[in-house]
Amino acid sequence: MDIKLVLTDIDGVWTDGGMYYDNTGNELKKFATSDSAGVLFLRKSGIPIGIITGEDTEIVRRRAEKLRIEYLFMGVQNKLPVALDLCKKLGLQPEKEVAYIGDDIIDIPLLQRVKISAVPANAPEYVKKHALWKLEKRGGDGVFREFAERLLTHYGLMDNILQWYIERLGKG
Amino acid sequence: MDIKLVLTDIDGVWTDGGMYYDNTGNELKKFATSDSAGVLFLRKSGIPIGIITGEDTEIVRRRAEKLRIEYLFMGVQNKLPVALDLCKKLGLQPEKEVAYIGDDIIDIPLLQRVKISAVPANAPEYVKKHALWKLEKRGGDGVFREFAERLLTHYGLMDNILQWYIERLGKG
Amino acid sequence: MDIKLVLTDIDGVWTDGGMYYDNTGNELKKFATSDSAGVLFLRKSGIPIGIITGEDTEIVRRRAEKLRIEYLFMGVQNKLPVALDLCKKLGLQPEKEVAYIGDDIIDIPLLQRVKISAVPANAPEYVKKHALWKLEKRGGDGVFREFAERLLTHYGLMDNILQWYIERLGKG
Amino acid sequence: MDIKLVLTDIDGVWTDGGMYYDNTGNELKKFATSDSAGVLFLRKSGIPIGIITGEDTEIVRRRAEKLRIEYLFMGVQNKLPVALDLCKKLGLQPEKEVAYIGDDIIDIPLLQRVKISAVPANAPEYVKKHALWKLEKRGGDGVFREFAERLLTHYGLMDNILQWYIERLGKG
Repeated sequence: MDIKLVLTDIDGVWTDGGMYYDNTGNELKKFATSDSAGVLFLRKSGIPIGIITGEDTEIVRRRAEKLRIEYLFMGVQNKLPVALDLCKKLGLQPEKEVAYIGDDIIDIPLLQRVKISAVPANAPEYVKKHALWKLEKRGGDGVFREFAERLLTHYGLMDNILQWYIERLGKG
Repeated sequence: MDIKLVLTDIDGVWTDGGMYYDNTGNELKKFATSDSAGVLFLRKSGIPIGIITGEDTEIVRRRAEKLRIEYLFMGVQNKLPVALDLCKKLGLQPEKEVAYIGDDIIDIPLLQRVKISAVPANAPEYVKKHALWKLEKRGGDGVFREFAERLLTHYGLMDNILQWYIERLGKG
Repeated sequence: MDIKLVLTDIDGVWTDGGMYYDNTGNELKKFATSDSAGVLFLRKSGIPIGIITGEDTEIVRRRAEKLRIEYLFMGVQNKLPVALDLCKKLGLQPEKEVAYIGDDIIDIPLLQRVKISAVPANAPEYVKKHALWKLEKRGGDGVFREFAERLLTHYGLMDNILQWYIERLGKG
Repeated sequence: MDIKLVLTDIDGVWTDGGMYYDNTGNELKKFATSDSAGVLFLRKSGIPIGIITGEDTEIVRRRAEKLRIEYLFMGVQNKLPVALDLCKKLGLQPEKEVAYIGDDIIDIPLLQRVKISAVPANAPEYVKKHALWKLEKRGGDGVFREFAERLLTHYGLMDNILQWYIERLGKG
């Protein structure tokens, strides 16, 4: 498999882009349980995940911690240099070894730069046209998992991973 | 009625798989009121319910308590042995007397083992194919109630239960 | 207008039936802003509103208070006698002067008894068949307002109320 | 560009009209991340934004503050005079230089008065007929951004703004 790193946006990808505000200064985001299997599949395949998001919240920090996400960059207004910097540290070529999923204008430069770029079904048209893969699911509805599964299927790894996962359970 | 125990997953079945995170470490899940009638119908039919879920939260403990669910297993990564253990204690044969509804890979071994297995409409295809019943509702949209009603209809008990329920109210 | 009292269920009518539980024992319900205009239209027409709900929460108490709902009955498992009691106090005949909207089995006896009964589009079939009006909107999506508007249209009052409302604003 | 001021409703436009109540007196509203780009596009075009809403909550105050909205009027039952007052202060003619998006009866007088009026796809018919533009998105699903983009497209400014935005990111 060429891809050695999967990068991902949060709002509009891991969520439907909704931000719940309350009267006390607290905030909520709604994540999809099903995305966690996407994380697990990539981990089993030895591919680390990096979150690059414009927002900076405890919400995302906790979600990343729970899923043991390898790299977390928050409050990033300009995602491309942050991604390039990480690639450099890891000795990776973005054009050949990195995949990215994002859903909005802020994601375009990075979508244009990586080998495999993807957008949720509900991304704006002017973002979609910059992505290699237009996914079927909407943000917050398991689109990150769809992305992970499609990547692993693309490289012929998905069947083995499903097999491994189910057998592991069967042994319990 | 053959079925003596109904087992159920939570996330993606009693909920739409959404997990609401906030900035303080708190979390929410959204349940469907309509599922509570499914619980009631099964109780009236003398069939206990067991929850087996991978997550471990106060949220589910409270929901189970409110609906007086008989068995609750949380934080279970491997569901089959937990289910088999419960069947043993209750003197039940899973292949002949147990029904289960789940929606993801983690549920496959148990779906394969019980007499009547079911999945919500939005489960992944590779999970669906292991289930006897592909239900019409999505997770969190009353699919547990659909499961309970279909079970009771399958064994010819539903009409009587509806009748009993409405008459009980009529007497109030 | 024959109708002198409008009674209403909450969960599944004013909400989509969702109950948000958190880890601290708190709970949320999601109401629709648009329903508040339904309340206003009925008030302008001199028709009081009564809530009869199976749940007993501060959530509903606050919502009822904010909208200045005239009658509030919570924690009611058997709705018909509570409704009949209120009718008696107000000197009303349920079969001739009361309208009710509910969405589940618990609502059937009351749906059967009032002059105009209504259900949201997503009520179960065995509840729907007991209602005079099958509304177009789903619970939580403004179906109470649809009910109020259809009632007022049915009695030829809606146009005047809209007119009055808009003129009142125009004068501001 | 003729338009010198964009006014907007909140509930049903920036949200789907949902109001989440809890048991402690707290409340939540769900905003759409994607709307924030609409705010940014208008700001880049030199057009200030004013919120005029019937509700009065910390929720909206925080959202407005985060997005650095220029004018905020809360608890307004009669929106037209508030809007006219602001126009006077800014030396603007509502019929020639102001755009407004709202979704309900309370918005009709203002929708009728401004040069460009818009409603979300799910506004009631008797509100829609007073609006110049019937937008494609529903409230809370990015309809404010659709409004901003359509305005800028209408005046031939959108392509440049997208270009500027993407280049700015590319330089990072």
